[in-house]
Amino acid sequence: MPPTGTPIAATPEQLAAIRYNADGLVPAIVQEASTGQVLMMAWMNAETLRLTLEEGRTVFWSRSRQEVWRKGETSGERQWVRAAYYDCDGDTLLFVVDQDGGGACHTGEHSCFFRAFGAEAASA
Amino acid sequence: MPPTGTPIAATPEQLAAIRYNADGLVPAIVQEASTGQVLMMAWMNAETLRLTLEEGRTVFWSRSRQEVWRKGETSGERQWVRAAYYDCDGDTLLFVVDQDGGGACHTGEHSCFFRAFGAEAASA
Repeated sequence: MPPTGTPIAATPEQLAAIRYNADGLVPAIVQEASTGQVLMMAWMNAETLRLTLEEGRTVFWSRSRQEVWRKGETSGERQWVRAAYYDCDGDTLLFVVDQDGGGACHTGEHSCFFRAFGAEAASA
Repeated sequence: MPPTGTPIAATPEQLAAIRYNADGLVPAIVQEASTGQVLMMAWMNAETLRLTLEEGRTVFWSRSRQEVWRKGETSGERQWVRAAYYDCDGDTLLFVVDQDGGGACHTGEHSCFFRAFGAEAASA
């Protein structure tokens, strides 16, 4: 599959259904299309949700840097959106993506959820 | 697989790695073990994370009701934890579960993420 974005034409009704928190943010879960693996969770505001749908690649709001965070812009680990969902309450988003590069995590791991709770995991 | 919980013995180091927000909460993604489907996202505090790991079933904190929310206690739609993860920053949790009953969503849908962005989805 070519590494390009496919825009998603959200309707005004769909966009109006999204409920942002007091900081104007909504959590966005990212799942890999090919494996079903949950890769990461980050935050979007209304602008970066719009950019994500328009560009067909994930764009987040960095809470630590307080700026637009175009995922993979410098690392090359971009995420191409294949489907986008919002939940029953409109307060969580889910993006199914093709992950470019080695993975989603800044540690080099493929998924940010690489640590399991439990004694076995602790000694792994 | 029998509908019972399997406790997960998290280490003190693992529990200490979790970073709660200003309200003392951390987002918890729930994914179905058999299908890989993302079912829902809800919130836990330190107490309900502990209960989830001890009981081997998801227990959340209800922000709207401000009380412990033992998922499926009245509806029967319990979630039995098969694996539990925390992310690189320690500020998001992921639970892989067996879902009891019809599904995770109070609407009757199997997943809370049953609405897609896009023109086709809008007319579906």
